Amino acid sequence: MKDLINILDLSISDIDELIKVATDIKAHPTKYADACRGKTLATLFFEPSTRTRLSFEAAMYGLGGNVLGFADGGRMSSASKGETVSDTARIVSIYADIIAMRHHIEGAPLAAGLAARVPVINAGDGGHFHPTQTLADLLTISSECGRLNNLTIGICGDLKYGRTVHSLIAAMSRYQNIRFILISPASLALPEYVIREMNAAGIEYVQTTSLTKYMSELDVLYMTRVQKERFDADELAQDDGEGYILNNETLSTAKPEMRILHPLPRVDEIAVEVDRDPRAKYFEQAEYGKFIRMALILRLLYSSGKDESIKTLKAETKCPNDRCIVAVEPEIERHAYLAPDGKLRCLYCDAALE
Amino acid sequence: MKDLINILDLSISDIDELIKVATDIKAHPTKYADACRGKTLATLFFEPSTRTRLSFEAAMYGLGGNVLGFADGGRMSSASKGETVSDTARIVSIYADIIAMRHHIEGAPLAAGLAARVPVINAGDGGHFHPTQTLADLLTISSECGRLNNLTIGICGDLKYGRTVHSLIAAMSRYQNIRFILISPASLALPEYVIREMNAAGIEYVQTTSLTKYMSELDVLYMTRVQKERFDADELAQDDGEGYILNNETLSTAKPEMRILHPLPRVDEIAVEVDRDPRAKYFEQAEYGKFIRMALILRLLYSSGKDESIKTLKAETKCPNDRCIVAVEPEIERHAYLAPDGKLRCLYCDAALE
Amino acid sequence: MKDLINILDLSISDIDELIKVATDIKAHPTKYADACRGKTLATLFFEPSTRTRLSFEAAMYGLGGNVLGFADGGRMSSASKGETVSDTARIVSIYADIIAMRHHIEGAPLAAGLAARVPVINAGDGGHFHPTQTLADLLTISSECGRLNNLTIGICGDLKYGRTVHSLIAAMSRYQNIRFILISPASLALPEYVIREMNAAGIEYVQTTSLTKYMSELDVLYMTRVQKERFDADELAQDDGEGYILNNETLSTAKPEMRILHPLPRVDEIAVEVDRDPRAKYFEQAEYGKFIRMALILRLLYSSGKDESIKTLKAETKCPNDRCIVAVEPEIERHAYLAPDGKLRCLYCDAALE
Repeated sequence: MKDLINILDLSISDIDELIKVATDIKAHPTKYADACRGKTLATLFFEPSTRTRLSFEAAMYGLGGNVLGFADGGRMSSASKGETVSDTARIVSIYADIIAMRHHIEGAPLAAGLAARVPVINAGDGGHFHPTQTLADLLTISSECGRLNNLTIGICGDLKYGRTVHSLIAAMSRYQNIRFILISPASLALPEYVIREMNAAGIEYVQTTSLTKYMSELDVLYMTRVQKERFDADELAQDDGEGYILNNETLSTAKPEMRILHPLPRVDEIAVEVDRDPRAKYFEQAEYGKFIRMALILRLLYSSGKDESIKTLKAETKCPNDRCIVAVEPEIERHAYLAPDGKLRCLYCDAALE
Repeated sequence: MKDLINILDLSISDIDELIKVATDIKAHPTKYADACRGKTLATLFFEPSTRTRLSFEAAMYGLGGNVLGFADGGRMSSASKGETVSDTARIVSIYADIIAMRHHIEGAPLAAGLAARVPVINAGDGGHFHPTQTLADLLTISSECGRLNNLTIGICGDLKYGRTVHSLIAAMSRYQNIRFILISPASLALPEYVIREMNAAGIEYVQTTSLTKYMSELDVLYMTRVQKERFDADELAQDDGEGYILNNETLSTAKPEMRILHPLPRVDEIAVEVDRDPRAKYFEQAEYGKFIRMALILRLLYSSGKDESIKTLKAETKCPNDRCIVAVEPEIERHAYLAPDGKLRCLYCDAALE
Repeated sequence: MKDLINILDLSISDIDELIKVATDIKAHPTKYADACRGKTLATLFFEPSTRTRLSFEAAMYGLGGNVLGFADGGRMSSASKGETVSDTARIVSIYADIIAMRHHIEGAPLAAGLAARVPVINAGDGGHFHPTQTLADLLTISSECGRLNNLTIGICGDLKYGRTVHSLIAAMSRYQNIRFILISPASLALPEYVIREMNAAGIEYVQTTSLTKYMSELDVLYMTRVQKERFDADELAQDDGEGYILNNETLSTAKPEMRILHPLPRVDEIAVEVDRDPRAKYFEQAEYGKFIRMALILRLLYSSGKDESIKTLKAETKCPNDRCIVAVEPEIERHAYLAPDGKLRCLYCDAALE
């Protein structure tokens, strides 16, 4: 593995190893304080995300390294002069030893990884992937619940557009005896394709519009922000979200050992009063995010080179997804892969090709 | 003391100690070159202020530490997604060991300090406080005049809106035998409440519209920028500011040992020809600003924890100031304190509560 | 030499020395990994240029130093409050040991250098100079061709507005037996004054509208971006640029040892297929850019102080160039020099004074 683009690029044993290292870093930070001395991380944020960017930067500083980059690349970078993501990545790999990239276009970090001679970490590409958030979630659950198997996990909020939710479901679906309680208004329910994947993998789940109905059964409650910036006015009018606010009252039937997670930032979906509840672990989750990013940086910088296990072929057909990097940058080399559903899919955005 | 929000949070002996350390840093910088090795400063600038931000960053680098943050948070941070200052501060205290925050809303840095588990330095909150500028002023006066007592201090410019002016008066009023010459057009005179405080404290002062009238009596002349961006067109029309420009002519009657200060940036209120006058100390003042910030960072990082001396109580009444953080973020915990004038005041913005 | 403003500030032997050091850094990077420990570079970018900024920052990190500054100063800095470049430079020289400045106004970095007490590197001033790009070009040619003499150099693209082109011609014209093939549409041909300088220096050149005609004679082909943001609609309509695209076909007659350079970013003037051609050296050129900037930083930080060899005098007459810093900041001290053409010229922008 050279890059981390998709959480599923990591095997369960890869994740176990990252969790082990992150846990050791948390326990013995000074042991790692010079691990990346003289190394430089580039944070290339083509769309702003302060929290994610600062987490990567704090991770690199915690390892003794340097950081350069930009926080708002859509406006300030060479990209505004028409440069491709591949060229940007190739150049930046001269300036840095590892790249964390966020981009509004699906597949852009993968394109960057193929062009760069240094490791590229996907720090979020449009509504597609955000694997380091999922790694933070997994480390939090593992550390706070003591296991990644045998869990009933409630997920509440915007399940339709929530990138972190889809990644978490995909990642947790590989563990044993996982059951999901999927809590959302009907208009924001999980997309059909995620449901199909869960069915195909034989995952147990319940879809409900009630936050409280299954509260007493949950080991983990994963709250998410309703990303209002992705809504149109009609959708906002259909549901005011009042029923999906976690507070001391809606929390009253939860088990004492339940853990509350949230990728943050929150707006009002978790009342401030819950912060003092010992089950609230969302601020700890942000801290776990820093430690797992440290482990990931170490892994990518000091492990062996290009992974040859992903077989690719030139796609003759066009990718039908107009939010994909190959639609935006027609010069890019097309790759496809044969998915478990038997379809040929775009390597950048996973859309099925004709 | 965990945080520095208001210059009056520091006792005179606290300030003496900071001046002593800053002076030692200036004399022996290499002694401190690794004092913050492995520590990280977060500069959270919700409104841009390049000079102040770079001064903090240079201070942290001078101590061997790292810096992360943002320069223009109103546009780029999670705040634009609706996150509270308290949540931002709590999260950033995972990524950094100390925070310097500038915010356009009064009380925001205090709210951040109450939520953060690391020290928070107020780097300016609206028109309210800017304590590190005042510390820079005090170190400059102390170093260049050799004393903080027995001084006649002229202050010229925008005395109505000038945050640094109000802070300087409050801080200097605690020293012995200080006399202020307050120089401004009538429309920009000191606010009534500052006058009342000076009267209550028995401070000697003169209000004048003439820059030259008292020039020969001054030990310090503190020039300030007329912050035109805070004016409406009528106010600008009333006074063109020509009479308040310091140049070789208006300076002609000043004592040889007078010292000229200015918080910078200047526009045209000090003519460039004055830069070569040995009494001009405004560039040195900027350098003192770096050293006092280094001393402050050391103090906050390596002194003991939360100060319990500030007594607070939950305010039942609303804060009447609509520029205060409690007006903008209604979820915030209300605090008040009993002021020397016998009034209950908002802890965040000092407005009197009913 | 205290500052680097113009590539011609450097003698041929200065450039030889920089190339020697850069080559040694490239071969033995760890030898230099702590050369600037405790030193700070300020990157003051009054207009955005991600590539150049990151190259400077990577250079400073490669030497073990720190970096502070801003990426988009026109919007965020004190400059928006009306501060002069001289004041900004003087203040920043308190915060940093060396400054790299990009500015949209000609002569601004020179004004900064005269005011700053630390070295200032011009990282691009309007359409005027960009000496570190030229240094990168020279190091690339020297390293890849093995010499800086006896070369036929094709330069293709926007020769009218291309700052890097004018600098490269000026720098290469000082070497022996250099011949230029100047390739552009007529509307984008070299400005008259550059032609005159070449004629005056007895440089051999050919002007052509064909990219392919002289291809087989070239030792170096320097492609440039057509900077569409500097064009008006009429100019764009006159020429669609199709004839000036380098691809495998237009490259077919080139010598095997020809080297292709480009200052980057490219848009479509070099087809992606050319990247795999062993003659393509534009990504290497970016890497050479980092190493030569490291050598330059070392030179300016550790060489002796102010150069007295440039004689200046106060200009009584106004500079006629309204894009010059003295037009924008009338307070600035005027300087002029007697040029080889016998004219008195503005020191900031080189315009002839009456």
